[in-house]
Amino acid sequence: MASPVFELDPQLSRATKEVGSLALSRVLFMNDSRYPWLVLVPQRPGIVEWSDLDTEDRHQLLDEAVFAGEVIRRLWDIDKLNTATLGNVVPQLHVHVIGRRQTDPAWPGPVWGHDQPVPYAEEACTSLLSLLQAELSCR
Amino acid sequence: MASPVFELDPQLSRATKEVGSLALSRVLFMNDSRYPWLVLVPQRPGIVEWSDLDTEDRHQLLDEAVFAGEVIRRLWDIDKLNTATLGNVVPQLHVHVIGRRQTDPAWPGPVWGHDQPVPYAEEACTSLLSLLQAELSCR
Repeated sequence: MASPVFELDPQLSRATKEVGSLALSRVLFMNDSRYPWLVLVPQRPGIVEWSDLDTEDRHQLLDEAVFAGEVIRRLWDIDKLNTATLGNVVPQLHVHVIGRRQTDPAWPGPVWGHDQPVPYAEEACTSLLSLLQAELSCR
Repeated sequence: MASPVFELDPQLSRATKEVGSLALSRVLFMNDSRYPWLVLVPQRPGIVEWSDLDTEDRHQLLDEAVFAGEVIRRLWDIDKLNTATLGNVVPQLHVHVIGRRQTDPAWPGPVWGHDQPVPYAEEACTSLLSLLQAELSCR
């Protein structure tokens, strides 16, 4: 039997634009102009909790989340990073890395479930994706 | 000049009961009976973001958060773990590790800011603290 293969959850795919891949993670950009927001999905099949990853992958995923946070901080003027794995709606393990500003609509509360997303204008989204790809040096 | 010393943020202290310490973290138990909820604070001074920790401490903190999640799963019947560092209100880096149930009042949304906490009865809280201390084998 072939070993299971990583496939990105379609709900994550629909809500985001794909930036590229790091050593472990697929990097996604949330199409919500209210918050600079990346989502990192470890490209391993069948992972729901941090404990499903072996120690090496787990540390790698955290390091990539920290790196994603640094990229957000370079591109946007933010006050705080929020880093979280929830997975109540989409079980496939995914790390939210979100730049927060004291002026954003959900501050100081969490961003999830706070009204509807405000998608980027198409041109702005394309520019941001290029910037993110350059900063992340994604393959 | 003396090097700065770790001190637990008083807001974190007020909202929680102290369970004990792991190798790196102070482990706190959120006094909110709606959710099994631990908070881990790395006992290093001046830490706000994951990137403020050196790589070794960062990996250790994640491993301790995974361990805390396993303890929650042993003591409660949960559907999902939520693991998060937000810090929009209390900047001192602290990792929330929360056991979520499809029947809890905030499901599937995030727990933060969802109505008021419901403190445990004193006796229940004392019993849970003892159980947690045994499971975490805290010093």
